[in-house]
Amino acid sequence: MLVLGLDPGLALTGWALIEGGGGRVALRDAGVWSTPAHQDQGRRLLSLWESFGELVASQAPQAVSLERLYFSRNVSTAMAVSQARGVLVCAAARAGLELHEYTPGEVKQAVTGSGSAPKRQVAKLVRLLLGDGVPLSPDDITDACAVGICHQHAAGLHRALAAGARR
Amino acid sequence: MLVLGLDPGLALTGWALIEGGGGRVALRDAGVWSTPAHQDQGRRLLSLWESFGELVASQAPQAVSLERLYFSRNVSTAMAVSQARGVLVCAAARAGLELHEYTPGEVKQAVTGSGSAPKRQVAKLVRLLLGDGVPLSPDDITDACAVGICHQHAAGLHRALAAGARR
Repeated sequence: MLVLGLDPGLALTGWALIEGGGGRVALRDAGVWSTPAHQDQGRRLLSLWESFGELVASQAPQAVSLERLYFSRNVSTAMAVSQARGVLVCAAARAGLELHEYTPGEVKQAVTGSGSAPKRQVAKLVRLLLGDGVPLSPDDITDACAVGICHQHAAGLHRALAAGARR
Repeated sequence: MLVLGLDPGLALTGWALIEGGGGRVALRDAGVWSTPAHQDQGRRLLSLWESFGELVASQAPQAVSLERLYFSRNVSTAMAVSQARGVLVCAAARAGLELHEYTPGEVKQAVTGSGSAPKRQVAKLVRLLLGDGVPLSPDDITDACAVGICHQHAAGLHRALAAGARR
């Protein structure tokens, strides 16, 4: 199964295509979609919509994985992120893709084994799991990889449980 | 000019088509798009995207008017609203429509003459300006009418200034 992990943002959205199966994960490709601050928000959100559409058309992931809306003290940042997130969630639904959401703790747990692991530890484990092909920056790519791995992990457990139940 | 005023929300989005010209405004049509809470958010946002597309295709407004992202103490509501708002802003850009944003104070000022008018006063003036055809509830419709009137007002001033400059 190919999962598209996303870390949404208006200025920068991290994306990562994570392949999984047989208890292993691998990176197919990753990057960022960026939109320039001087453009109006409609143009920026539309460019995000189009970038998502092009990637989905060319790579055909089966599912999209992203973090749940989180509480943030910086409300205006949270609202800008939410606008970008809404566009991506809508685009995923329009493409008929499964959408899976995880809390930050669930993502950390799946990648490092600890729900309270520091950010640096998550980044280290992402590279250990996926190899040195993961770009070191920006963080948005690492975060997109992590949430993609998290869904592969959850889907793997689900398959294992289903297989166990059939026995 | 026909303006589509919007009051975005995930559960309820108010919309109002406001015609304007020669210093007058009139209501062509208004309503709400609602999405059921039991549906997943992707399906709800997609339904908003589709409702917007259908209205724009059948009524061909030239511009979309909505309130600026506002600071809210209820962050999770603000983020859900922002997701819906992002979808509508993106859909407007995709349809090639002008997008105009106004602060709540600018909307109140345009409708009532006072930037700090209470909500009830705004609703009263909206009905005075547009007639009794404006549905009394939900508030989302009144708010969509108000922001639509606000843009007609601003566009009218802009045309008058441009005409004055040409003299």
